[in-house]
Amino acid sequence: MTELLSIILAAGEGTRMRSTTPKVLHPVGGMPIIGHVARAAREAGSTQIALVTGPAHDAIRKSVSALHPDVVHFEQKVARGTAHAASMARDLFSTAKGYVAVVYGDHPLLRGINFRAVLDRLDAGLDVAILGFEPKDPSGYGRFITDGDTLLAIREHKDATEDERRIRLCNACILAFRAEVFRDLIDKVEANNAQNEYYLGDLVELANAAGKKVGYGLAPENDVMGVNDRSQLARAEGLFQDVQREEFMKAGVTLKDPKSVWFSYDTEIAHDVTVEPNVVFGPGVKIEEGAVIHAFSHIEGAHVGRNASVGPFARLRPEANLGEGAKVGNFVEIKKAEIGKGAKVSHLTYIGDASIGAEVNVGAGVITVNYDGYNKHRTVVGDGAFIGSNASLVAPVTVGAGALVASGSVITEDVEADALALGRARQVAKPGRAKDIFAAAAAKKQANKDK
Amino acid sequence: MTELLSIILAAGEGTRMRSTTPKVLHPVGGMPIIGHVARAAREAGSTQIALVTGPAHDAIRKSVSALHPDVVHFEQKVARGTAHAASMARDLFSTAKGYVAVVYGDHPLLRGINFRAVLDRLDAGLDVAILGFEPKDPSGYGRFITDGDTLLAIREHKDATEDERRIRLCNACILAFRAEVFRDLIDKVEANNAQNEYYLGDLVELANAAGKKVGYGLAPENDVMGVNDRSQLARAEGLFQDVQREEFMKAGVTLKDPKSVWFSYDTEIAHDVTVEPNVVFGPGVKIEEGAVIHAFSHIEGAHVGRNASVGPFARLRPEANLGEGAKVGNFVEIKKAEIGKGAKVSHLTYIGDASIGAEVNVGAGVITVNYDGYNKHRTVVGDGAFIGSNASLVAPVTVGAGALVASGSVITEDVEADALALGRARQVAKPGRAKDIFAAAAAKKQANKDK
Amino acid sequence: MTELLSIILAAGEGTRMRSTTPKVLHPVGGMPIIGHVARAAREAGSTQIALVTGPAHDAIRKSVSALHPDVVHFEQKVARGTAHAASMARDLFSTAKGYVAVVYGDHPLLRGINFRAVLDRLDAGLDVAILGFEPKDPSGYGRFITDGDTLLAIREHKDATEDERRIRLCNACILAFRAEVFRDLIDKVEANNAQNEYYLGDLVELANAAGKKVGYGLAPENDVMGVNDRSQLARAEGLFQDVQREEFMKAGVTLKDPKSVWFSYDTEIAHDVTVEPNVVFGPGVKIEEGAVIHAFSHIEGAHVGRNASVGPFARLRPEANLGEGAKVGNFVEIKKAEIGKGAKVSHLTYIGDASIGAEVNVGAGVITVNYDGYNKHRTVVGDGAFIGSNASLVAPVTVGAGALVASGSVITEDVEADALALGRARQVAKPGRAKDIFAAAAAKKQANKDK
Repeated sequence: MTELLSIILAAGEGTRMRSTTPKVLHPVGGMPIIGHVARAAREAGSTQIALVTGPAHDAIRKSVSALHPDVVHFEQKVARGTAHAASMARDLFSTAKGYVAVVYGDHPLLRGINFRAVLDRLDAGLDVAILGFEPKDPSGYGRFITDGDTLLAIREHKDATEDERRIRLCNACILAFRAEVFRDLIDKVEANNAQNEYYLGDLVELANAAGKKVGYGLAPENDVMGVNDRSQLARAEGLFQDVQREEFMKAGVTLKDPKSVWFSYDTEIAHDVTVEPNVVFGPGVKIEEGAVIHAFSHIEGAHVGRNASVGPFARLRPEANLGEGAKVGNFVEIKKAEIGKGAKVSHLTYIGDASIGAEVNVGAGVITVNYDGYNKHRTVVGDGAFIGSNASLVAPVTVGAGALVASGSVITEDVEADALALGRARQVAKPGRAKDIFAAAAAKKQANKDK
Repeated sequence: MTELLSIILAAGEGTRMRSTTPKVLHPVGGMPIIGHVARAAREAGSTQIALVTGPAHDAIRKSVSALHPDVVHFEQKVARGTAHAASMARDLFSTAKGYVAVVYGDHPLLRGINFRAVLDRLDAGLDVAILGFEPKDPSGYGRFITDGDTLLAIREHKDATEDERRIRLCNACILAFRAEVFRDLIDKVEANNAQNEYYLGDLVELANAAGKKVGYGLAPENDVMGVNDRSQLARAEGLFQDVQREEFMKAGVTLKDPKSVWFSYDTEIAHDVTVEPNVVFGPGVKIEEGAVIHAFSHIEGAHVGRNASVGPFARLRPEANLGEGAKVGNFVEIKKAEIGKGAKVSHLTYIGDASIGAEVNVGAGVITVNYDGYNKHRTVVGDGAFIGSNASLVAPVTVGAGALVASGSVITEDVEADALALGRARQVAKPGRAKDIFAAAAAKKQANKDK
Repeated sequence: MTELLSIILAAGEGTRMRSTTPKVLHPVGGMPIIGHVARAAREAGSTQIALVTGPAHDAIRKSVSALHPDVVHFEQKVARGTAHAASMARDLFSTAKGYVAVVYGDHPLLRGINFRAVLDRLDAGLDVAILGFEPKDPSGYGRFITDGDTLLAIREHKDATEDERRIRLCNACILAFRAEVFRDLIDKVEANNAQNEYYLGDLVELANAAGKKVGYGLAPENDVMGVNDRSQLARAEGLFQDVQREEFMKAGVTLKDPKSVWFSYDTEIAHDVTVEPNVVFGPGVKIEEGAVIHAFSHIEGAHVGRNASVGPFARLRPEANLGEGAKVGNFVEIKKAEIGKGAKVSHLTYIGDASIGAEVNVGAGVITVNYDGYNKHRTVVGDGAFIGSNASLVAPVTVGAGALVASGSVITEDVEADALALGRARQVAKPGRAKDIFAAAAAKKQANKDK
């Protein structure tokens, strides 16, 4: 495959987001918008990726580098238009071979095939290929002025004549060039417009004037939607989710009400998994075959084994790892913990920084006390142990296999295998005293009213 | 602005709701339908508001008076039509100056601008102006019979000819008059129809006959939808919510899935707040900048400070007040309690009638025991204290700043600052006993089976 | 009514479901698809029901027998087409009187009236009547070749001419015959097609050739949708739910956001019940008048009494039975338990295998310890008792009427009526010790960092 330098432009301010977070860092499907664009560029076979950001955009640079360490960063110090932004990557394109693609960084639904739509045109002999689409409502978009397959110019909406505004084919978000053509033309763009800015779209006319072959590729409208405000962000999120939902159903996952399940970009779910309504999958989740995710579950960074059962009302946090057939029930939180094969944590429990053995039964209201205000400590429960309801396991602590912790006990010392551990006071009865206490409380209530 | 008397009609029975609650008291966005109408009348600049209800409608009168104490109540003892209902407010309109607007009380999406649409026509010289709209499906609505800008009559659907039924312009829910014109005409309405009722719409023909200038204003269809059954109630709720959702997104609030977030009429959310899917905002909520409301949260009457984090699976009840950067996590309920700056209440906890200091860490499973069956008592926890997991704080009780309550303790007496408080039994181990206990339980199970 | 033998075909593999569960066992509205078809056949007045399944379909046979014990099972050993499948039921149709209806088992939205649409045509004198419908997109369906009211043939899409493909009237999923006509013709079907299969549709041409009167009935498209993959399963579920939602609203139930409430096939809800957003009703639920089901509630197999309040964040499991005015609040699970009239279980509690008396107050964090790892034991709490927060009631145990269990107590012995029961350690204070402990923990944290 031909070498490809992709230049991602993310120097804009995105003021319509009304956010102190840069626009391209707002997430879609659990990944920043810019991450989706970089991933698409990667999928398209980019050999080099350049990212052009503004001076206050450290957060963008860090976020992208975390995902793609080899991305090369360039800064556009003053906002002087898209051509000016792309020219910041001169260090790379001055020596680039093959193709150069310039792409806008605020298009979260972009995929590798959208790059291919224009790169294929270069492969077929064009010098310049611009990605186009046919929006339902073209108003506001730059129109493609064409002559047969040749793209003559991109006419901004505001500069377009009545006739030109009837054109449905519009400018999307990727411009692809033979590297030498890009190099030759980029500095010829002039800022002869009201805004005194250098526009990438002008390269089309410049290329035609230089006798280059200029054409276009096509993308579905949804793939090339840009995000400028939070309404569009929500719409992009919805479109992203709809694609995921359809793909999981095709793959054999039951979604009882697809619209009420939210996935992340990297969610993995095997076939014959059932997902009830109202489930949130944060990043880093893998669900194995036959598992059932009941309604109102919130799962991130977790692994759910075969035939395990989660929820309703369960929360699995990062590094929760449920073994085959394990059960995590209602109002239970699991964090950084193994839940062994066939183990049951059914109700009102917090298991954090722990290893729970196979076939363990954890009663209702059990808490692993893992935090001393400064450090996190680990709880280990051996296979087949039984932890009585409302018990507190004060970490670091180990409960041996087959041991039994009595209900309501606070366990601060290790418990041997097969031992019974108790830590609770003897029950005392005071006959008739409840009556007196209630009478006093009722009197007090009356006294407060009388005041 | 000209004086305005608004007469709200709410004497109808609303039998299609199939409810023992009067129709106009069913809520939309957390406020009774009639409250929305009264608010719209107020927004439109009403100097006086009259409410006409039926004999069994004490609940409506109370509800409206609670929101608008200056509303004047009139009772329609027998249902004899809308003109008869409006005439009940004679004590006010007999001396009213300026304008009189009559409006139906079952229109929850009505806004001040819908009143203005007809009042502006009076300002422009008309004597009578009726609010009209163009429904997608006009079937069933009264049609406007017009001659240019003049409204000649309102023709009920059942009385309309084939030709008249093709008219798209229909009668909405506000009729506005110069006060003296209303006074002159209201008693001239006759009950010459099958139902023997007096109809407000007849005022249009009467006004024309008296040589008055009669016209109309226009409203969007959604604004003037009436509610007659629970399907329409749900539709009104949905339309109300959609408006809120768009407005919050415009203002810089991220709604990951707008359709799964429900607001109340008075919800306040600052920009750069993120709201995950499935969040319910009851009345009286204010969320400050930078806060994150995680999925499955239920919040009413609460204040959430800057950069605070709520949920998933959190419930904030009235008078919950979270300080800057505070965290309320999963399966936590907060009621009538301050949670100090940076304090953490992360899991499985109930905090009620309490004041939790800054930077306090409340462990999992902690309960403030605030109720003795008769009275509520207060818990105070000083700054920087640490409440161990599964502890019970039996109010009234104070835990001093920097104090440490051991896990599983029941605290009934005040704890000094920097003190350690314990209230738990010593752990006892019985080696091998778990085995015996399990064997006995298994035997019992078998015996039950064998029975 | 004429006798009716209904033959349900469920021998297909349903590979597009990508499931180890047979297609017709996937649930819609909490009942397997095949259960809906059997119910429709029953509603239509079937005197006998035959079910034809494949060799590996034991699970289907069991599931249907559980719902309809009188269904007669037949096995189709090799897949040789729908006519071959129907012929498996020979033992029944060889002696059947009246009518024979053959119906496909993968149509979960089918209702009795869809059978009636064809049976009525037989009543009116036809010999054969096939159920048809007019799909929005007829592509892929068999077309009805008609001459006036006569159905001449069913033309498979792939065999249809251009002209025939323009026909909108398509084959649905029920074929009805006079019994003797069915008997005469079923063995005349030939497998003269590429797949070497016997097709039921061929009976139409055979009947015409034999001089029989052949016609059709009509069904709405939604009623006759078949399920072949999980996308269609989700769509069927959505359509099923929409019908339920509308019916409940018509009956006087408030659904604040109908799309976020999921019902089962047998859910019963009285009028003037309010259901907030995000509620799941599993099978076997009955809700009485005036109850309020708050957001985020999950209810199955439970009974909720008049004016009771459930949730938010409540889970009612099978055999939960809430008395009049009872309250089950947030993060509470109730299983196999009576909650008495006016009793309150407001927060963070598990009540299982229990009987809670009238007007009992159960504090936050209370657990009924019902399981010893082998057996379930019962807790009984008498009227007016008060169970303090974080208490554990270790079953079998009885707390008498009017008794008071102190917060944090572990109750293992019965408590007399009006007695106070305590089971907790005395509080001990160690002045200044918190400071030392925190200092040590901080030092340890630092040491770990320094490593």
